[in-house]
Amino acid sequence: MGVLPLQSRDSEGRLYIVGTGPGNLLQMTPRAFAALDEADCVIGNGFYLDLVRPMLAGKEVIRSSMGREVDRAEKALALARDRVVAMVSGGDAGVYGMASIVLEVAERSATAVPIEVIPGITAAVSAAARLGSPLSGDYVTMSLSDLLTPWEEIERRLDLAFRMRVPVVLYNPRSRGRPHNLDTAIEIASRHLPGETPVGVVRNAYREGEERLITTLGEFNDHITFVDMHSIVFVGGGETRIWRNETDARGIITPRGYHRKYVY
Amino acid sequence: MGVLPLQSRDSEGRLYIVGTGPGNLLQMTPRAFAALDEADCVIGNGFYLDLVRPMLAGKEVIRSSMGREVDRAEKALALARDRVVAMVSGGDAGVYGMASIVLEVAERSATAVPIEVIPGITAAVSAAARLGSPLSGDYVTMSLSDLLTPWEEIERRLDLAFRMRVPVVLYNPRSRGRPHNLDTAIEIASRHLPGETPVGVVRNAYREGEERLITTLGEFNDHITFVDMHSIVFVGGGETRIWRNETDARGIITPRGYHRKYVY
Repeated sequence: MGVLPLQSRDSEGRLYIVGTGPGNLLQMTPRAFAALDEADCVIGNGFYLDLVRPMLAGKEVIRSSMGREVDRAEKALALARDRVVAMVSGGDAGVYGMASIVLEVAERSATAVPIEVIPGITAAVSAAARLGSPLSGDYVTMSLSDLLTPWEEIERRLDLAFRMRVPVVLYNPRSRGRPHNLDTAIEIASRHLPGETPVGVVRNAYREGEERLITTLGEFNDHITFVDMHSIVFVGGGETRIWRNETDARGIITPRGYHRKYVY
Repeated sequence: MGVLPLQSRDSEGRLYIVGTGPGNLLQMTPRAFAALDEADCVIGNGFYLDLVRPMLAGKEVIRSSMGREVDRAEKALALARDRVVAMVSGGDAGVYGMASIVLEVAERSATAVPIEVIPGITAAVSAAARLGSPLSGDYVTMSLSDLLTPWEEIERRLDLAFRMRVPVVLYNPRSRGRPHNLDTAIEIASRHLPGETPVGVVRNAYREGEERLITTLGEFNDHITFVDMHSIVFVGGGETRIWRNETDARGIITPRGYHRKYVY
Protein backbone atom coordinates (compact mmCIF):
# COMPACT_ATOMS: atom_id res chain seq x y z
CA MET A 1 0.00 0.00 0.00
CA GLY A 2 2.98 2.36 0.05
CA VAL A 3 3.61 5.01 2.65
CA LEU A 4 1.05 6.90 4.70
CA PRO A 5 2.84 10.20 4.54
CA LEU A 6 0.63 12.10 6.95
CA GLN A 7 0.87 9.51 9.68
CA SER A 8 2.51 9.99 13.03
CA ARG A 9 2.56 7.98 16.26
CA ASP A 10 1.48 10.45 18.95
CA SER A 11 -2.03 9.14 19.17
CA GLU A 12 -4.09 5.97 19.43
CA GLY A 13 -6.87 7.27 17.24
CA ARG A 14 -6.78 8.28 13.62
CA LEU A 15 -8.68 10.41 11.16
CA TYR A 16 -9.69 9.37 7.65
CA ILE A 17 -10.77 12.14 5.31
CA VAL A 18 -12.90 10.17 2.88
CA GLY A 19 -13.85 11.29 -0.61
CA THR A 20 -17.21 9.64 -1.23
CA GLY A 21 -17.40 10.36 -4.97
CA PRO A 22 -20.49 11.72 -6.71
CA GLY A 23 -22.88 10.21 -4.16
CA ASN A 24 -23.62 6.75 -5.49
CA LEU A 25 -22.04 3.83 -3.69
CA LEU A 26 -21.07 2.23 -7.01
CA GLN A 27 -18.69 5.15 -7.47
CA MET A 28 -17.05 4.99 -4.03
CA THR A 29 -13.75 3.09 -3.76
CA PRO A 30 -13.17 -0.07 -1.68
CA ARG A 31 -10.61 1.94 0.36
CA ALA A 32 -13.32 4.47 1.24
CA PHE A 33 -15.72 1.65 2.20
CA ALA A 34 -13.04 0.10 4.41
CA ALA A 35 -12.36 3.40 6.18
CA LEU A 36 -16.06 3.93 6.90
CA ASP A 37 -16.33 0.34 8.07
CA GLU A 38 -13.39 0.75 10.47
CA ALA A 39 -14.62 4.08 11.86
CA ASP A 40 -16.18 4.39 15.31
CA CYS A 41 -17.52 7.78 14.40
CA VAL A 42 -18.49 9.40 11.09
CA ILE A 43 -18.74 13.16 10.74
CA GLY A 44 -19.91 15.25 7.82
CA ASN A 45 -22.46 17.46 6.20
CA GLY A 46 -25.94 15.88 6.22
CA PHE A 47 -26.18 15.75 2.41
CA TYR A 48 -23.08 13.54 2.12
CA LEU A 49 -23.89 11.46 5.20
CA ASP A 50 -27.26 10.56 3.66
CA LEU A 51 -25.51 9.32 0.52
CA VAL A 52 -23.45 6.81 2.56
CA ARG A 53 -26.29 5.90 4.93
CA PRO A 54 -25.94 2.10 4.39
CA MET A 55 -22.43 2.35 5.89
CA LEU A 56 -23.48 4.15 9.08
CA ALA A 57 -25.31 1.45 11.06
CA GLY A 58 -24.01 1.09 14.61
CA LYS A 59 -21.71 4.12 14.41
CA GLU A 60 -21.81 7.46 16.12
CA VAL A 61 -22.87 9.93 13.43
CA ILE A 62 -22.19 13.65 13.79
CA ARG A 63 -24.09 15.89 11.38
CA SER A 64 -22.53 19.26 10.77
CA SER A 65 -23.98 22.12 8.74
CA MET A 66 -22.66 23.73 5.60
CA GLY A 67 -20.68 26.79 6.63
CA ARG A 68 -19.41 25.16 9.86
CA GLU A 69 -16.35 23.57 8.28
CA VAL A 70 -13.79 24.91 10.77
CA ASP A 71 -15.83 23.63 13.73
CA ARG A 72 -16.25 20.30 11.98
CA ALA A 73 -12.50 19.96 11.42
CA GLU A 74 -11.74 20.84 15.07
CA LYS A 75 -14.31 18.37 16.35
CA ALA A 76 -13.05 15.57 14.09
CA LEU A 77 -9.45 16.09 15.20
CA ALA A 78 -10.42 16.19 18.88
CA LEU A 79 -12.39 12.94 18.56
CA ALA A 80 -9.58 11.28 16.60
CA ARG A 81 -7.17 11.48 19.54
CA ASP A 82 -8.45 8.16 20.85
CA ARG A 83 -10.99 6.92 18.29
CA VAL A 84 -11.13 6.05 14.60
CA VAL A 85 -12.97 8.92 12.93
CA ALA A 86 -14.05 9.19 9.28
CA MET A 87 -14.93 12.59 7.91
CA VAL A 88 -16.93 12.32 4.69
CA SER A 89 -16.54 14.85 1.91
CA GLY A 90 -18.37 14.66 -1.44
CA GLY A 91 -16.40 13.92 -4.60
CA ASP A 92 -12.71 14.11 -3.73
CA ALA A 93 -11.89 15.69 -0.36
CA GLY A 94 -8.87 17.45 -1.88
CA VAL A 95 -10.92 19.40 -4.46
CA TYR A 96 -13.29 21.96 -2.89
CA GLY A 97 -13.61 19.49 -0.03
CA MET A 98 -12.61 19.09 3.61
CA ALA A 99 -8.97 17.94 3.29
CA SER A 100 -7.29 21.35 3.37
CA ILE A 101 -9.31 22.74 6.22
CA VAL A 102 -8.64 19.66 8.39
CA LEU A 103 -4.91 19.85 7.65
CA GLU A 104 -4.86 23.58 8.39
CA VAL A 105 -6.45 22.97 11.78
CA ALA A 106 -4.12 19.98 12.40
CA GLU A 107 -1.10 22.17 11.57
CA ARG A 108 -1.93 24.43 14.54
CA SER A 109 -2.85 21.62 16.89
CA ALA A 110 -0.59 20.49 19.74
CA THR A 111 -1.52 16.81 19.30
CA ALA A 112 -0.43 15.09 16.10
CA VAL A 113 -3.23 12.75 15.07
CA PRO A 114 -2.53 10.28 12.20
CA ILE A 115 -4.45 11.49 9.17
CA GLU A 116 -5.06 9.73 5.86
CA VAL A 117 -6.69 11.42 2.89
CA ILE A 118 -8.63 8.82 0.86
CA PRO A 119 -9.21 9.97 -2.72
CA GLY A 120 -12.63 9.95 -4.38
CA ILE A 121 -14.08 10.48 -7.85
CA THR A 122 -14.11 14.26 -8.21
CA ALA A 123 -17.14 15.92 -9.83
CA ALA A 124 -15.19 17.09 -12.90
CA VAL A 125 -14.51 13.52 -14.00
CA SER A 126 -17.83 11.98 -12.95
CA ALA A 127 -19.83 14.67 -14.75
CA ALA A 128 -17.46 14.49 -17.75
CA ALA A 129 -18.16 10.76 -18.13
CA ARG A 130 -21.87 11.59 -18.58
CA LEU A 131 -21.07 13.89 -21.52
CA GLY A 132 -18.58 11.63 -23.32
CA SER A 133 -15.12 13.11 -23.13
CA PRO A 134 -15.30 16.90 -22.75
CA LEU A 135 -11.96 17.22 -20.92
CA SER A 136 -9.63 14.60 -22.47
CA GLY A 137 -6.40 16.56 -22.02
CA ASP A 138 -5.30 19.80 -20.38
CA TYR A 139 -8.08 21.60 -18.50
CA VAL A 140 -8.82 24.13 -15.79
CA THR A 141 -10.92 23.55 -12.67
CA MET A 142 -12.56 26.66 -11.21
CA SER A 143 -15.26 27.39 -8.63
CA LEU A 144 -17.64 30.32 -9.07
CA SER A 145 -18.33 30.54 -5.34
CA ASP A 146 -17.00 33.77 -3.88
CA LEU A 147 -17.57 32.72 -0.28
CA LEU A 148 -13.85 32.02 0.26
CA THR A 149 -12.16 33.71 -2.73
CA PRO A 150 -12.76 37.38 -3.64
CA TRP A 151 -14.80 37.74 -6.84
CA GLU A 152 -12.20 40.02 -8.48
CA GLU A 153 -9.62 37.24 -8.07
CA ILE A 154 -12.04 34.70 -9.59
CA GLU A 155 -12.57 37.00 -12.59
CA ARG A 156 -8.81 37.43 -13.02
CA ARG A 157 -8.33 33.64 -13.05
CA LEU A 158 -11.29 33.06 -15.40
CA ASP A 159 -9.83 35.46 -17.94
CA LEU A 160 -6.48 33.61 -17.97
CA ALA A 161 -8.23 30.22 -17.96
CA PHE A 162 -10.36 30.97 -21.03
CA ARG A 163 -7.34 32.46 -22.79
CA MET A 164 -5.71 29.03 -22.49
CA ARG A 165 -8.46 27.76 -24.87
CA VAL A 166 -8.61 24.45 -23.03
CA PRO A 167 -11.81 23.09 -21.43
CA VAL A 168 -12.80 24.83 -18.20
CA VAL A 169 -14.86 23.00 -15.58
CA LEU A 170 -16.97 25.19 -13.32
CA TYR A 171 -17.86 23.89 -9.84
CA ASN A 172 -20.49 25.69 -7.73
CA PRO A 173 -21.68 27.45 -10.87
CA ARG A 174 -24.91 28.97 -9.60
CA SER A 175 -26.82 29.32 -6.36
CA ARG A 176 -29.53 31.57 -5.03
CA GLY A 177 -26.99 33.71 -3.23
CA ARG A 178 -24.97 34.42 -6.39
CA PRO A 179 -27.12 33.95 -9.48
CA HIS A 180 -25.04 36.28 -11.69
CA ASN A 181 -21.54 34.86 -11.29
CA LEU A 182 -22.22 32.36 -14.08
CA ASP A 183 -23.42 35.09 -16.49
CA THR A 184 -20.15 36.93 -15.90
CA ALA A 185 -18.08 33.77 -16.39
CA ILE A 186 -19.85 33.07 -19.71
CA GLU A 187 -19.28 36.68 -20.76
CA ILE A 188 -15.54 36.32 -20.03
CA ALA A 189 -15.43 33.02 -21.96
CA SER A 190 -17.10 34.72 -24.94
CA ARG A 191 -14.24 37.23 -25.16
CA HIS A 192 -11.81 34.43 -25.99
CA LEU A 193 -13.84 31.63 -27.60
CA PRO A 194 -16.29 31.57 -30.53
CA GLY A 195 -20.06 31.29 -30.06
CA GLU A 196 -20.12 27.71 -31.38
CA THR A 197 -17.88 26.49 -28.52
CA PRO A 198 -19.72 23.57 -26.83
CA VAL A 199 -21.04 24.01 -23.31
CA GLY A 200 -22.26 21.02 -21.30
CA VAL A 201 -24.07 20.89 -17.98
CA VAL A 202 -24.60 17.82 -15.81
CA ARG A 203 -26.99 18.14 -12.89
CA ASN A 204 -26.85 15.51 -10.12
CA ALA A 205 -24.29 13.30 -11.89
CA TYR A 206 -24.78 9.68 -10.75
CA ARG A 207 -27.49 10.74 -8.30
CA GLU A 208 -31.28 10.70 -8.29
CA GLY A 209 -32.55 13.23 -10.83
CA GLU A 210 -29.52 13.14 -13.12
CA GLU A 211 -29.98 15.37 -16.19
CA ARG A 212 -27.71 16.87 -18.78
CA LEU A 213 -27.74 19.70 -21.28
CA ILE A 214 -25.55 20.21 -24.34
CA THR A 215 -25.51 23.62 -25.97
CA THR A 216 -23.06 26.28 -27.15
CA LEU A 217 -21.53 29.40 -25.66
CA GLY A 218 -23.63 31.55 -28.01
CA GLU A 219 -26.91 29.91 -26.96
CA PHE A 220 -26.11 29.29 -23.32
CA ASN A 221 -28.00 32.28 -21.93
CA ASP A 222 -31.28 30.68 -23.06
CA HIS A 223 -30.54 27.70 -20.81
CA ILE A 224 -28.89 29.30 -17.80
CA THR A 225 -31.75 28.45 -15.41
CA PHE A 226 -31.03 24.73 -16.02
CA VAL A 227 -27.93 25.22 -13.87
CA ASP A 228 -28.25 24.86 -10.10
CA MET A 229 -25.90 24.27 -7.18
CA HIS A 230 -25.81 20.53 -7.88
CA SER A 231 -24.56 21.11 -11.44
CA ILE A 232 -21.16 21.05 -13.08
CA VAL A 233 -20.65 23.23 -16.17
CA PHE A 234 -18.08 22.47 -18.89
CA VAL A 235 -17.00 25.19 -21.31
CA GLY A 236 -15.12 23.61 -24.21
CA GLY A 237 -11.68 24.57 -25.48
CA GLY A 238 -10.66 25.59 -28.95
CA GLU A 239 -10.94 22.06 -30.35
CA THR A 240 -13.96 20.78 -28.43
CA ARG A 241 -16.95 19.71 -30.56
CA ILE A 242 -20.45 18.35 -30.11
CA TRP A 243 -20.81 14.71 -31.10
CA ARG A 244 -24.02 14.69 -33.13
CA ASN A 245 -26.13 11.69 -34.02
CA GLU A 246 -28.14 13.03 -36.95
CA THR A 247 -29.85 15.99 -35.21
CA ASP A 248 -29.39 14.96 -31.56
CA ALA A 249 -26.33 15.69 -29.48
CA ARG A 250 -24.87 12.41 -28.22
CA GLY A 251 -22.11 14.05 -26.25
CA ILE A 252 -19.12 16.36 -26.19
CA ILE A 253 -15.65 15.39 -27.42
CA THR A 254 -12.40 17.24 -26.95
CA PRO A 255 -9.99 15.42 -29.28
CA ARG A 256 -6.57 14.63 -27.84
CA GLY A 257 -4.69 15.40 -31.01
CA TYR A 258 -4.37 11.99 -32.67
CA HIS A 259 -5.66 13.64 -35.87
CA ARG A 260 -2.39 15.59 -35.95
CA LYS A 261 -0.39 12.38 -35.71
CA TYR A 262 -2.41 9.81 -37.68
CA VAL A 263 -4.86 9.78 -40.54
CA TYR A 264 -7.87 7.72 -39.51
CA MET B 1 -28.61 4.94 -11.88
CA GLY B 2 -29.67 7.85 -14.06
CA VAL B 3 -29.29 8.01 -17.81
CA LEU B 4 -26.63 6.35 -19.93
CA PRO B 5 -26.28 9.23 -22.32
CA LEU B 6 -24.01 7.55 -24.84
CA GLN B 7 -26.20 4.50 -25.24
CA SER B 8 -28.06 3.54 -28.39
CA ARG B 9 -29.90 0.39 -29.49
CA ASP B 10 -28.31 -0.52 -32.81
CA SER B 11 -26.16 -3.29 -31.39
CA GLU B 12 -26.26 -6.33 -29.13
CA GLY B 13 -22.81 -5.71 -27.71
CA ARG B 14 -21.53 -2.80 -25.72
CA LEU B 15 -18.30 -1.07 -24.83
CA TYR B 16 -17.25 0.04 -21.37
CA ILE B 17 -14.38 2.48 -21.17
CA VAL B 18 -13.16 1.81 -17.65
CA GLY B 19 -11.02 4.14 -15.57
CA THR B 20 -9.03 1.82 -13.31
CA GLY B 21 -7.66 4.51 -10.98
CA PRO B 22 -4.03 4.70 -9.89
CA GLY B 23 -3.47 0.97 -10.26
CA ASN B 24 -4.43 -0.49 -6.92
CA LEU B 25 -7.69 -2.40 -6.73
CA LEU B 26 -8.58 -0.65 -3.47
CA GLN B 27 -8.85 2.54 -5.52
CA MET B 28 -11.05 1.15 -8.33
CA THR B 29 -14.79 1.71 -8.04
CA PRO B 30 -17.44 -1.05 -7.68
CA ARG B 31 -18.90 0.12 -11.03
CA ALA B 32 -15.53 -0.50 -12.71
CA PHE B 33 -15.30 -3.96 -11.07
CA ALA B 34 -18.81 -4.78 -12.31
CA ALA B 35 -17.98 -3.73 -15.88
CA LEU B 36 -14.84 -5.89 -15.92
CA ASP B 37 -16.80 -8.75 -14.43
CA GLU B 38 -19.49 -8.50 -17.12
CA ALA B 39 -17.01 -8.19 -20.01
CA ASP B 40 -16.34 -11.08 -22.40
CA CYS B 41 -13.23 -9.34 -23.59
CA VAL B 42 -10.83 -6.86 -21.96
CA ILE B 43 -8.54 -4.70 -24.06
CA GLY B 44 -5.82 -2.30 -22.98
CA ASN B 45 -2.19 -1.41 -22.64
CA GLY B 46 -0.22 -4.16 -20.87
CA PHE B 47 0.76 -1.94 -17.93
CA TYR B 48 -2.89 -1.30 -16.99
CA LEU B 49 -4.03 -4.86 -17.75
CA ASP B 50 -1.43 -6.17 -15.30
CA LEU B 51 -2.82 -3.91 -12.59
CA VAL B 52 -6.29 -5.49 -12.93
CA ARG B 53 -5.00 -9.04 -13.45
CA PRO B 54 -7.20 -10.60 -10.71
CA MET B 55 -10.25 -9.55 -12.76
CA LEU B 56 -9.15 -11.14 -16.03
CA ALA B 57 -9.55 -14.88 -15.35
CA GLY B 58 -11.58 -16.64 -18.04
CA LYS B 59 -11.77 -13.61 -20.34
CA GLU B 60 -10.29 -12.91 -23.71
CA VAL B 61 -7.51 -10.40 -23.06
CA ILE B 62 -6.13 -8.21 -25.84
CA ARG B 63 -2.84 -6.46 -25.08
CA SER B 64 -2.20 -3.37 -27.15
CA SER B 65 1.00 -1.31 -27.15
CA MET B 66 1.50 2.31 -26.15
CA GLY B 67 1.28 4.39 -29.32
CA ARG B 68 -1.34 2.11 -30.94
CA GLU B 69 -4.35 3.91 -29.43
CA VAL B 70 -6.27 4.42 -32.68
CA ASP B 71 -5.95 0.72 -33.59
CA ARG B 72 -6.99 -0.21 -30.07
CA ALA B 73 -10.11 1.97 -30.29
CA GLU B 74 -11.07 0.53 -33.71
CA LYS B 75 -10.58 -3.01 -32.50
CA ALA B 76 -12.61 -2.45 -29.33
CA LEU B 77 -15.51 -0.93 -31.26
CA ALA B 78 -15.49 -3.76 -33.82
CA LEU B 79 -15.55 -6.40 -31.07
CA ALA B 80 -18.29 -4.54 -29.19
CA ARG B 81 -20.80 -5.01 -32.03
CA ASP B 82 -21.84 -8.35 -30.57
CA ARG B 83 -19.88 -8.77 -27.35
CA VAL B 84 -19.40 -6.99 -24.05
CA VAL B 85 -15.99 -5.33 -24.23
CA ALA B 86 -14.17 -3.43 -21.48
CA MET B 87 -11.32 -1.17 -22.44
CA VAL B 88 -9.13 -0.33 -19.47
CA SER B 89 -7.48 3.06 -19.12
CA GLY B 90 -5.33 4.10 -16.12
CA GLY B 91 -6.64 6.78 -13.77
CA ASP B 92 -9.73 8.31 -15.33
CA ALA B 93 -10.30 7.46 -19.01
CA GLY B 94 -11.48 11.02 -19.70
CA VAL B 95 -8.19 12.65 -18.57
CA TYR B 96 -5.23 11.78 -20.84
CA GLY B 97 -6.92 8.41 -21.32
CA MET B 98 -8.76 6.42 -23.96
CA ALA B 99 -12.27 7.95 -23.78
CA SER B 100 -11.82 10.68 -26.39
CA ILE B 101 -10.06 8.53 -28.95
CA VAL B 102 -12.74 5.82 -28.71
CA LEU B 103 -15.51 8.39 -29.12
CA GLU B 104 -13.71 10.00 -32.07
CA VAL B 105 -13.51 6.65 -33.81
CA ALA B 106 -17.15 5.86 -32.88
CA GLU B 107 -18.24 9.22 -34.33
CA ARG B 108 -17.02 8.13 -37.78
CA SER B 109 -18.29 4.59 -37.50
CA ALA B 110 -21.38 3.35 -39.39
CA THR B 111 -22.48 1.11 -36.50
CA ALA B 112 -23.59 2.80 -33.30
CA VAL B 113 -22.34 0.66 -30.42
CA PRO B 114 -23.59 1.50 -26.89
CA ILE B 115 -20.70 3.06 -25.00
CA GLU B 116 -20.44 3.88 -21.30
CA VAL B 117 -17.54 5.83 -19.82
CA ILE B 118 -16.91 4.66 -16.24
CA PRO B 119 -15.04 7.25 -14.21
CA GLY B 120 -11.89 6.47 -12.21
CA ILE B 121 -9.66 8.19 -9.68
CA THR B 122 -7.53 10.49 -11.82
CA ALA B 123 -3.82 10.81 -11.01
CA ALA B 124 -4.09 14.46 -9.93
CA VAL B 125 -6.32 13.57 -6.99
CA SER B 126 -4.67 10.27 -6.04
CA ALA B 127 -1.20 11.82 -6.00
CA ALA B 128 -2.56 14.91 -4.20
CA ALA B 129 -3.91 12.72 -1.38
CA ARG B 130 -0.34 11.48 -0.75
CA LEU B 131 0.89 15.04 -0.24
CA GLY B 132 -1.94 16.28 1.98
CA SER B 133 -4.02 18.85 0.13
CA PRO B 134 -1.91 20.60 -2.53
CA LEU B 135 -4.88 21.40 -4.83
CA SER B 136 -7.82 22.19 -2.52
CA GLY B 137 -9.51 24.71 -4.82
CA ASP B 138 -9.02 26.05 -8.34
CA TYR B 139 -6.20 24.34 -10.25
CA VAL B 140 -4.85 23.60 -13.71
CA THR B 141 -4.14 20.17 -15.17
CA MET B 142 -1.44 20.07 -17.88
CA SER B 143 0.57 17.37 -19.65
CA LEU B 144 4.18 17.98 -20.66
CA SER B 145 4.04 15.34 -23.40
CA ASP B 146 4.36 16.92 -26.83
CA LEU B 147 3.46 13.72 -28.70
CA LEU B 148 -0.06 15.00 -29.47
CA THR B 149 0.14 18.74 -28.72
CA PRO B 150 2.80 21.02 -30.26
CA TRP B 151 5.36 22.17 -27.68
CA GLU B 152 4.83 25.87 -28.49
CA GLU B 153 1.15 25.47 -27.59
CA ILE B 154 2.09 23.74 -24.32
CA GLU B 155 4.43 26.63 -23.46
CA ARG B 156 1.69 29.17 -24.24
CA ARG B 157 -0.72 27.35 -21.92
CA LEU B 158 1.88 26.95 -19.16
CA ASP B 159 2.56 30.68 -19.14
CA LEU B 160 -1.15 31.48 -18.68
CA ALA B 161 -1.56 28.66 -16.13
CA PHE B 162 1.26 29.89 -13.88
CA ARG B 163 -0.02 33.46 -14.21
CA MET B 164 -3.26 32.26 -12.59
CA ARG B 165 -1.16 31.60 -9.42
CA VAL B 166 -3.24 28.51 -8.62
CA PRO B 167 -1.72 25.03 -8.23
CA VAL B 168 -0.69 23.40 -11.50
CA VAL B 169 -0.58 19.59 -11.81
CA LEU B 170 1.82 18.23 -14.40
CA TYR B 171 1.06 14.82 -15.94
CA ASN B 172 3.71 13.05 -18.07
CA PRO B 173 6.32 15.38 -16.61
CA ARG B 174 9.49 13.67 -17.80
CA SER B 175 10.51 10.76 -20.01
CA ARG B 176 13.66 9.70 -21.81
CA GLY B 177 12.30 11.09 -25.07
CA ARG B 178 11.74 14.59 -23.66
CA PRO B 179 13.94 15.14 -20.59
CA HIS B 180 14.00 18.96 -20.91
CA ASN B 181 10.29 19.80 -21.07
CA LEU B 182 10.12 19.84 -17.27
CA ASP B 183 13.09 22.23 -16.97
CA THR B 184 11.28 24.63 -19.30
CA ALA B 185 8.02 24.32 -17.39
CA ILE B 186 9.81 25.10 -14.11
CA GLU B 187 11.52 28.06 -15.74
CA ILE B 188 8.12 29.42 -16.89
CA ALA B 189 6.68 28.88 -13.38
CA SER B 190 9.62 30.82 -11.90
CA ARG B 191 8.69 33.88 -13.96
CA HIS B 192 5.40 34.17 -12.12
CA LEU B 193 5.89 32.57 -8.70
CA PRO B 194 8.50 33.10 -5.95
CA GLY B 195 11.31 30.61 -5.30
CA GLU B 196 9.74 29.46 -2.01
CA THR B 197 6.62 28.16 -3.82
CA PRO B 198 6.18 24.50 -2.80
CA VAL B 199 6.71 21.77 -5.38
CA GLY B 200 5.65 18.19 -4.68
CA VAL B 201 6.31 15.03 -6.65
CA VAL B 202 4.61 11.66 -6.17
CA ARG B 203 6.07 8.70 -8.00
CA ASN B 204 3.93 5.56 -8.40
CA ALA B 205 1.06 6.85 -6.25
CA TYR B 206 -0.73 3.86 -4.65
CA ARG B 207 1.49 1.41 -6.54
CA GLU B 208 4.55 -0.64 -5.68
CA GLY B 209 7.51 1.69 -5.17
CA GLU B 210 5.51 4.74 -4.09
CA GLU B 211 7.76 7.67 -3.15
CA ARG B 212 7.30 11.37 -2.69
CA LEU B 213 9.39 14.50 -2.65
CA ILE B 214 8.56 17.91 -1.21
CA THR B 215 10.73 20.86 -2.19
CA THR B 216 10.42 24.40 -3.56
CA LEU B 217 10.52 25.98 -6.98
CA GLY B 218 13.90 27.53 -6.19
CA GLU B 219 15.46 24.21 -5.18
CA PHE B 220 13.66 21.96 -7.64
CA ASN B 221 16.50 21.71 -10.16
CA ASP B 222 18.57 19.79 -7.58
CA HIS B 223 15.87 17.11 -7.49
CA ILE B 224 14.71 16.93 -11.09
CA THR B 225 16.06 13.42 -11.67
CA PHE B 226 13.62 12.14 -9.02
CA VAL B 227 10.87 12.71 -11.60
CA ASP B 228 10.10 9.93 -14.08
CA MET B 229 7.22 9.01 -16.37
CA HIS B 230 5.28 7.45 -13.49
CA SER B 231 5.38 10.69 -11.51
CA ILE B 232 2.95 13.55 -11.01
CA VAL B 233 4.38 17.00 -10.23
CA PHE B 234 2.49 19.70 -8.32
CA VAL B 235 3.61 23.31 -8.50
CA GLY B 236 1.87 25.30 -5.77
CA GLY B 237 -0.13 28.48 -6.23
CA GLY B 238 0.34 31.84 -4.54
CA GLU B 239 -1.01 30.63 -1.18
CA THR B 240 0.33 27.07 -1.11
CA ARG B 241 2.65 26.23 1.80
CA ILE B 242 4.68 23.32 3.10
CA TRP B 243 3.24 21.76 6.25
CA ARG B 244 6.28 21.32 8.46
CA ASN B 245 6.59 19.09 11.50
CA GLU B 246 9.61 20.60 13.26
CA THR B 247 12.18 20.18 10.46
CA ASP B 248 10.43 17.54 8.32
CA ALA B 249 7.89 18.29 5.64
CA ARG B 250 4.65 16.46 6.47
CA GLY B 251 2.85 17.58 3.36
CA ILE B 252 1.66 20.45 1.19
CA ILE B 253 -1.41 22.55 1.96
CA THR B 254 -3.17 25.02 -0.29
CA PRO B 255 -5.58 26.80 2.05
CA ARG B 256 -9.11 27.27 0.72
CA GLY B 257 -9.53 30.74 2.17
CA TYR B 258 -11.25 30.07 5.49
CA HIS B 259 -8.63 32.34 7.07
CA ARG B 260 -10.23 35.21 5.17
CA LYS B 261 -13.62 34.34 6.61
CA TYR B 262 -12.89 33.09 10.14
CA VAL B 263 -10.28 33.61 12.79
CA TYR B 264 -9.13 30.20 14.03
